[in-house]
Amino acid sequence: MENTVLVLNGPNLNLLGKRQPEIYGRATLLDVEDLCRITASEVGLSAECRQSNAEHVLIDAIHEFRVGCAGIVINAGAYTHTSVAILDALNACEVPVIECHISNVHRREEFRHHSYISKAATAVMAGFGIQGYALAIRHLAHLRAGKA
Amino acid sequence: MENTVLVLNGPNLNLLGKRQPEIYGRATLLDVEDLCRITASEVGLSAECRQSNAEHVLIDAIHEFRVGCAGIVINAGAYTHTSVAILDALNACEVPVIECHISNVHRREEFRHHSYISKAATAVMAGFGIQGYALAIRHLAHLRAGKA
Amino acid sequence: MENTVLVLNGPNLNLLGKRQPEIYGRATLLDVEDLCRITASEVGLSAECRQSNAEHVLIDAIHEFRVGCAGIVINAGAYTHTSVAILDALNACEVPVIECHISNVHRREEFRHHSYISKAATAVMAGFGIQGYALAIRHLAHLRAGKA
Amino acid sequence: MENTVLVLNGPNLNLLGKRQPEIYGRATLLDVEDLCRITASEVGLSAECRQSNAEHVLIDAIHEFRVGCAGIVINAGAYTHTSVAILDALNACEVPVIECHISNVHRREEFRHHSYISKAATAVMAGFGIQGYALAIRHLAHLRAGKA
Amino acid sequence: MENTVLVLNGPNLNLLGKRQPEIYGRATLLDVEDLCRITASEVGLSAECRQSNAEHVLIDAIHEFRVGCAGIVINAGAYTHTSVAILDALNACEVPVIECHISNVHRREEFRHHSYISKAATAVMAGFGIQGYALAIRHLAHLRAGKA
Amino acid sequence: MENTVLVLNGPNLNLLGKRQPEIYGRATLLDVEDLCRITASEVGLSAECRQSNAEHVLIDAIHEFRVGCAGIVINAGAYTHTSVAILDALNACEVPVIECHISNVHRREEFRHHSYISKAATAVMAGFGIQGYALAIRHLAHLRAGKA
Amino acid sequence: MENTVLVLNGPNLNLLGKRQPEIYGRATLLDVEDLCRITASEVGLSAECRQSNAEHVLIDAIHEFRVGCAGIVINAGAYTHTSVAILDALNACEVPVIECHISNVHRREEFRHHSYISKAATAVMAGFGIQGYALAIRHLAHLRAGKA
Amino acid sequence: MENTVLVLNGPNLNLLGKRQPEIYGRATLLDVEDLCRITASEVGLSAECRQSNAEHVLIDAIHEFRVGCAGIVINAGAYTHTSVAILDALNACEVPVIECHISNVHRREEFRHHSYISKAATAVMAGFGIQGYALAIRHLAHLRAGKA
Amino acid sequence: MENTVLVLNGPNLNLLGKRQPEIYGRATLLDVEDLCRITASEVGLSAECRQSNAEHVLIDAIHEFRVGCAGIVINAGAYTHTSVAILDALNACEVPVIECHISNVHRREEFRHHSYISKAATAVMAGFGIQGYALAIRHLAHLRAGKA
Amino acid sequence: MENTVLVLNGPNLNLLGKRQPEIYGRATLLDVEDLCRITASEVGLSAECRQSNAEHVLIDAIHEFRVGCAGIVINAGAYTHTSVAILDALNACEVPVIECHISNVHRREEFRHHSYISKAATAVMAGFGIQGYALAIRHLAHLRAGKA
Amino acid sequence: MENTVLVLNGPNLNLLGKRQPEIYGRATLLDVEDLCRITASEVGLSAECRQSNAEHVLIDAIHEFRVGCAGIVINAGAYTHTSVAILDALNACEVPVIECHISNVHRREEFRHHSYISKAATAVMAGFGIQGYALAIRHLAHLRAGKA
Amino acid sequence: MENTVLVLNGPNLNLLGKRQPEIYGRATLLDVEDLCRITASEVGLSAECRQSNAEHVLIDAIHEFRVGCAGIVINAGAYTHTSVAILDALNACEVPVIECHISNVHRREEFRHHSYISKAATAVMAGFGIQGYALAIRHLAHLRAGKA
Repeated sequence: MENTVLVLNGPNLNLLGKRQPEIYGRATLLDVEDLCRITASEVGLSAECRQSNAEHVLIDAIHEFRVGCAGIVINAGAYTHTSVAILDALNACEVPVIECHISNVHRREEFRHHSYISKAATAVMAGFGIQGYALAIRHLAHLRAGKA
Repeated sequence: MENTVLVLNGPNLNLLGKRQPEIYGRATLLDVEDLCRITASEVGLSAECRQSNAEHVLIDAIHEFRVGCAGIVINAGAYTHTSVAILDALNACEVPVIECHISNVHRREEFRHHSYISKAATAVMAGFGIQGYALAIRHLAHLRAGKA
Repeated sequence: MENTVLVLNGPNLNLLGKRQPEIYGRATLLDVEDLCRITASEVGLSAECRQSNAEHVLIDAIHEFRVGCAGIVINAGAYTHTSVAILDALNACEVPVIECHISNVHRREEFRHHSYISKAATAVMAGFGIQGYALAIRHLAHLRAGKA
Repeated sequence: MENTVLVLNGPNLNLLGKRQPEIYGRATLLDVEDLCRITASEVGLSAECRQSNAEHVLIDAIHEFRVGCAGIVINAGAYTHTSVAILDALNACEVPVIECHISNVHRREEFRHHSYISKAATAVMAGFGIQGYALAIRHLAHLRAGKA
Repeated sequence: MENTVLVLNGPNLNLLGKRQPEIYGRATLLDVEDLCRITASEVGLSAECRQSNAEHVLIDAIHEFRVGCAGIVINAGAYTHTSVAILDALNACEVPVIECHISNVHRREEFRHHSYISKAATAVMAGFGIQGYALAIRHLAHLRAGKA
Repeated sequence: MENTVLVLNGPNLNLLGKRQPEIYGRATLLDVEDLCRITASEVGLSAECRQSNAEHVLIDAIHEFRVGCAGIVINAGAYTHTSVAILDALNACEVPVIECHISNVHRREEFRHHSYISKAATAVMAGFGIQGYALAIRHLAHLRAGKA
Repeated sequence: MENTVLVLNGPNLNLLGKRQPEIYGRATLLDVEDLCRITASEVGLSAECRQSNAEHVLIDAIHEFRVGCAGIVINAGAYTHTSVAILDALNACEVPVIECHISNVHRREEFRHHSYISKAATAVMAGFGIQGYALAIRHLAHLRAGKA
Repeated sequence: MENTVLVLNGPNLNLLGKRQPEIYGRATLLDVEDLCRITASEVGLSAECRQSNAEHVLIDAIHEFRVGCAGIVINAGAYTHTSVAILDALNACEVPVIECHISNVHRREEFRHHSYISKAATAVMAGFGIQGYALAIRHLAHLRAGKA
Repeated sequence: MENTVLVLNGPNLNLLGKRQPEIYGRATLLDVEDLCRITASEVGLSAECRQSNAEHVLIDAIHEFRVGCAGIVINAGAYTHTSVAILDALNACEVPVIECHISNVHRREEFRHHSYISKAATAVMAGFGIQGYALAIRHLAHLRAGKA
Repeated sequence: MENTVLVLNGPNLNLLGKRQPEIYGRATLLDVEDLCRITASEVGLSAECRQSNAEHVLIDAIHEFRVGCAGIVINAGAYTHTSVAILDALNACEVPVIECHISNVHRREEFRHHSYISKAATAVMAGFGIQGYALAIRHLAHLRAGKA
Repeated sequence: MENTVLVLNGPNLNLLGKRQPEIYGRATLLDVEDLCRITASEVGLSAECRQSNAEHVLIDAIHEFRVGCAGIVINAGAYTHTSVAILDALNACEVPVIECHISNVHRREEFRHHSYISKAATAVMAGFGIQGYALAIRHLAHLRAGKA
Repeated sequence: MENTVLVLNGPNLNLLGKRQPEIYGRATLLDVEDLCRITASEVGLSAECRQSNAEHVLIDAIHEFRVGCAGIVINAGAYTHTSVAILDALNACEVPVIECHISNVHRREEFRHHSYISKAATAVMAGFGIQGYALAIRHLAHLRAGKA
C-alpha cells in the first residue's frame, strides 16, 4: 500500500464531460482515472481511483487510506464547501493530502470560495483542468522522494 | 421516459403525517405519492415517486432523470438548506425542476429561508400543503405542452 | 364578496410584456388579468384585478378585502423586498394570501431574495410565469372548498 | 398655528382596534384622535389629526407643519423602519418632534427595532398604548412653556 | 408597598447636572428625585428613589420590588446596553416596568441604540429630559387605575 | 419628445433652499428647474421638470419617458437608498439615465452611501451642487450627438 | 423497547482512540459502547449502540427510536454543525435527547461552536470525555424515574 | 481544601423556583445547594456553595478557590454571556471548572448562545435541570480519582 | 499655479484603450490628457496631467498641488477602493477635489462600490466615459469663478 | 490633589505575577504600585493606587478624581472590552486619561481588540509590560508641564 | 517573447529562506529562480524572474508581459490579499496566469484566505513549497502545447 | 548597528505640522526626528530616521534593520490599516518593534481602529503626540538593558 495514491472524486464527478463542459471540460471520469493511473505509473506509484456521490463512502475511503499510503488526491466536489465530516476524516490522516479542483472555484459563486478541505490539506490547487490530478500525483511522488 | 415526472422527497418526509402535524399536516407520504400519480395521469403523465433520507440517493435519482423526462418535482427537505451537492446535480439537469415545500418555510426559523435548490430550480413553491405537488405536476404538463 | 379573489399587482407590473421580456415574458398585464378572470370563473370564483405603482393604493386594496373574500393573490413587485407597510396590511388579513412572482426571484440579485410579504403569506410561488396566478387562484378555490 | 400640534398617524393605523388587538389594543383611530384633541385642549393647545397610508401624504403634512406649530407627534407605523424620505422631512423641521409607538416595538420582530424616525426626533416613546399620544402632547406643552 | 413606585437610576447618574450638560441638562439627581416624589404624590403614589453605580445593587433593588408595588421606572444608564443580568431581573418582575432615558439615545453612538432592558420593559421612553420620569410615573398611575 | 430631457426630483426637494442650506445650498427648486431649462436650450434640448414626494409619481414619470426621449436626470432624494421600485422602473428605460445628487452623499450618514438607482444609471454624480443638473444635461446632449 | 437507550455516534467516531488522542483521548469506540452498556444496566436500562459515518443511517436510527424508548444519547460528530436533516429527525422525537461531545467544542474552531442538534436536544454536554455518555445515560434514567 | 468543590451561582439564581418556573423549574436555590452538599458527600467531597448577584463577588470566590480545591461548578447566569472578567478569573484557575446551566440555553434567545465561560471551562452542560449540579460534582470526583 | 488643474490618473490607466474596451472604451490615456488640456484652456485654466501605477507617486503629486492650484481631478483607479494613504493626502488638500471614474463602478463588482477617495472629495462622478474629465475641469472653473 | 495621579487597576490584576506569567510577566501588583509611586515622585507627582474587581468601585474612583488631579492611568482589565459604564465615567473626566495594558492585547483573542475605554482616553498603550505604567505617569507629568 | 514565462515574486519574498522557515522552508529566492529556469528549459521555455517589494513594479512587469508571452506565474505575497491594482493589471492579461503560494494560505490567518489575484488567475495553487513554481511552469507549457 | 534605533514614518507624515494640526499638532517631521535623535542619545542609542510615502521603501527599511539593531519605532500612517506587506516584513524582524501613532486613532473613523502592524508589534501606543516617539525609544533602551 505504501506506493498507492488514493484518488478520490466526490459528488457529481461521475457526470464529468457530460454536464456544463464550459466549466468542467469534456474529459470524462474515466479519462481522469486513466490519466491518474498512467501518471502514477510514470512516477513509480499506483493509483487507486474511487468516486462516490455519498459523503460516508468518501469518509470510509479516507479512513481506509489514512495511514501508510503515498498520499491522497481529493476532489470532494460540492462537499468541499459543506462537509466538516470529511474535514475530520482528513484531520485523522497521517499521509499528505492534495485538494484538487478542475475549475478555478474562486471565479465562481461566493459559496464555492470557502473550503473545509483546505484546512486539512497539505496543498490545494484549482483551475488546472484534469491535468491538476496529474500534477498532484507527481507532487506526492516528489514528497515521497523527499522523505525516502 | 419522456412522459414521466420524477417526484423526489428528501429526508424525514417518510414521517409525513406522523411528526409535527401542525406544520406538515396529517397526510402521509403514501397520500402524497397517490396524489402525484393521480394528478399525473390526469394530465397525461406518469409519476415516478422516490423518497430517501440519503443525500446520495437523491443525487443518483436526479442523475437518472436529468435528461429526457417531463420534469422533476423536488422537496429536498432539510437538504434544501445545506446541500450544494444536490444543487450541482440539479445544475446538470436539462429538464424543468420545481422546488416544492409543504409548509411556508419563510415563516419558520431563519436557517430555513435560504435554499440552494432555488438557484437551479425553474420554479419554487412553499406553503401549499400537499396540493403543492399536484400544482407542480400540472405546471410541468403545462410547460411540456408549451414545448410540444 | 365571499366568492371574490383579489388579484393585486404592484409597481411596474403595468409594463408587463414591454420591459425585460427575457425575465418577465411577453404576456401583458391585460393577459394576466384575463387569465385570472377565466381561471376564477372555472373554479366558481370571480377575480377583482387591481394594479398600482403606489404602495398606499395596494395597502388600501388589502384593507378593502382583508375580511370576507375568498383570498388574495399578490405580486407586490419591488415592494416585496422593501415594504413593511404592506406586510402589516397583510398581517391584518383574515383571508388566505398567496404571494406570486412571475420570475424565480431566487436566481436574480441578492436583494430580491428577501420578502417581507412571505412572513404574512399563506403560500409563496415564484418562477411559474403568468400561470402562477392561475395556480394560485385554483389553490384558493381548493382552500375554500376545504373550509366549506 | 403656533398652538397647534400635528398628530400624524401612518400606514395601517386606520385599522386600529380592528387588527391584532393583542398588540395594538381595542381603541380605534377615532378614540386616539379624540384623546389627542381633549388632551391638547387641557394644556392650551389644539390637535390637528391626520392619518394616511401614503408616505408622500405624511411627508406633505410634515412640510406643512415644519415651522411655527407647537410640535409634531408622529406614529409612522411601518414607515418608521423603512422611510428615509420621512426622516429627511423631519430633519427639515424646526419644531419638536415626538415619535410615538403604541406597542413596545423592541419586543417584536428584529426589523422593528430600527427606526429612521428616531434620528430626527426630539424624543421617542413606545409601549404606552394610546396614552402615549396624550403624554407626548403634554410634553410638547411642557417644552413650549419652557421656551415661552 | 402597593402604592410605591421604584425609581431606579444606574451608573453615573449621580453625576447628573455635573457632566456633559449639553447631553443630560443641568438638573441634578436630587432634582430628578424631587420631581419623582412630587409627581408620585400628585397621582396618589409614593416614589422610592435609588441610585447605584453597582449592577448588583440595581438587581437587588429590582428583586425587592418585583412583586406587589405599583411599578418600576428604570434608567439603567450604561448597563442598558450591556447587562443581561438586569434584563433577567426585570424578566422576573410581575409589575410594569418603564425604561427611561434622559437623552434620545438613538441620536448618539451606535452602541447606545441597543437596549437589553427594552426586551423586558412594558414601555420605553428617551429624550424627554428629566420630565420623562414624571411622565413614566403618571403612566404607572394610569396603568394601576386601569387594573383597579 | 426625442429632444426632451426629463428632470426628475424626488422627496423633500421641494424644500430646496429652505432646509439645511449648509448641506443643500440656498438655491430653490425653481432655481434648479430654471437652470435645467436654460442649459437644455443651450444644447438644443428642452427640459421637462417634475418633482414629487410620491414614489409612484416618480415611477409613473419614468414610465412616461422610458422610451424615445433624450434621457433622464434623476435626483431621487431619499428614495435613492430605499426604492427597488424606482430601480425597476429605470431598468425598463431605453434612454440614458443620469443619477444626480446635490451634496456628496458619500460624506454623510452610512445609509446614504448605498444607491439602488446606481444599478440602473448610465452615470452617477454627487456633490456638484445644483450645477450637477446642468452638467448632466450637457452630457445627455453629448451622448445624443454621439448616437446621431 | 421502553427500557432501551439509543446511543448514537456519528462520523469518524469509529476512529476514536486512534485519531488526535490529545483531543479525544485514548478510549476506543468499543470502550465507549462497553461503558454505555454497563452504565445502562446499573440504572435498569439497556443500551443500543450504533455508529455510522452516514447521515441517513443516523436519521434512520433516530426514526426507529423516536417514540417509546427511554431516550437518545447522540454524539453527531461533525454533523452536529451542518445537519439540518438530523435536527429535523430529532424534532420528530417524543423521547428525551441528550447531545454529548467528548471534547469541549467551544474551545475549538469557531465553526464547531454552533450546533443544530442543540435546538432539538433536551440537554447538551461537552468536554466530559467518554464519561459524558455515562452521565447522559444516568440522566435519562433520572428523567424516566421522574415520569414513572 | 483539596476535597472541596466550589459551587458558584451567579445573578438572579437567588430567585430560583420563584421566577419563570417554566424555564427554571420549581426547585429553589436552597434545594440546589442541599443537592450539591448531599452529592458531594456521597463522592467523598464537600461542597462550598456561594451565590451572588455581584460580578466581583464571583471573581473573588474564583480567586479564593483557583488553586488546590477539587474543582469549581459555576452557573454564572447572565454573566455567562457578558463577563470577560469572570473568564479571566477562570483562566487563572488550576483546578477543573464545569460550566452548568439549568435550562438548555441553546433553545433560548440568540444572545444566550454565546458563553465566555466556555472558553475557560473543562466541560460544559445545559438543560439537565438542577441535576446538572449533581452530575458536575460527580464528574469532578471522577477527575480527582483519575489523578490520584 | 493658481490656474492649474492637476489631472491625476492611477494604476493601469496607462493601458486605457488597450484593455477591456467594453468597460473603459477605446480612448487612450493620451486622448484623455489631450481632452483635459483642451477643456482647461477653454475655461482659462491649464491642465497638468500625471499618471502613475505607484501609490506614493500619486501621494507626492497630491502633496505638490494640495495648496494654491485650481483643483484636482483624480481617477485613482484601483487605489480608490484600498488606499487610506491617498485619502489622507487628499484630506490635507485645501483645493477642491473631484473624483472621476470612467465606468459606472456601482454596476461592477461589490468591492468597487466603496471608495476611500469619496470621503475627501468635493464631488464624485462615474460612468461619464472620458467626458467625465472634461466636466470635472469645467466644474473646477465654475467653483473658481464662484470664489473670485 | 492637583499633583496626584490616580492609578486604577481593574479585575484580576490583583493576581498579577501569579496567573499566566507568559502573558503578564512575573511582577506583582505591589511591584506595579511601587513602580508607580517611585516614578510619580521622580516627576514631582504622587500616585494614588487603587485596584478592584468591582466595576462600580472603579467608577466611584474615577468620579472621585475626575476633576482637579494630574490625570488617571487606567488598566481596566477585562472591563476594557465590556464596560460602557466606565466609558461614561471617563467621559465625565476633565483630566487626561491614559489607558494602559501590560500585554499587547491586539495579539490576543479577537474580543480583546475592542476597547470602550479608548473612546474616552487621551492616549492608549499596550504591550509595554509594567513599564507602561511608568511611561504613562511620565507622560501625565509632561502634559501637566505643558499646561503650567 | 512567446517562449518566455514571467515568474513574478512579490513583497518579502526576497527574504525567502531567511524568515519563518517553519512556514516558507529553507530555500532562498535564488533557489526558486534557479528551479524556475531549469524547469522552463526542460519544457522548452525560458523563465524571466522578477521580484519586487513595490506594488507598481509588479504592475509594470505584468503590463510588460500581458500579451504574447507563454504565461505568468505570480506569487504576489501579501499583495494577494490587498491589491485590486494588481488584479486589474492581471485582468488586462491575454496570457494564462497561475497564482502560486509556497505555503497553504488557507491554514493560516483568516485575512490570508481571500485573494484578489484568484479572480483573474487561470489556476491557483498553494502549499506545494517551491515545487509549486515548477508545476506551474510545466502547466503553462502544457497549455501552450494545447494551443499549438 | 546594535545601538541604533530605526524610526520609520510612513505616508503623509512628511506633512506633519502642516496638515490638520487639530489632529496631529504643530510639530513638523524635523521636530520629530530631532526629538528622536536627542532622546536616543540620552539613553545611549542613536536614531536612524526615515520617512517615505512608498510602501516598498518602508518594507526595504524594515528588512535592512530586521536583525541586530536596538529596535524599530514605526508610525506606518495609513498603511497601518491596509498593509499586510508591512506586517509580513515586521513578522520577519528579530528585534522589538513599537507601533506609534501621534493621535488616538481609536477616537477617529472606524477604519482607523484596525491595525495590521499591531499583530507583529511588541508594543503599541497612540495619542501621546510626538512625545510617543520619545517614550518608545526610552522603552527600547529599557528592553535592551533587560537583555544585557
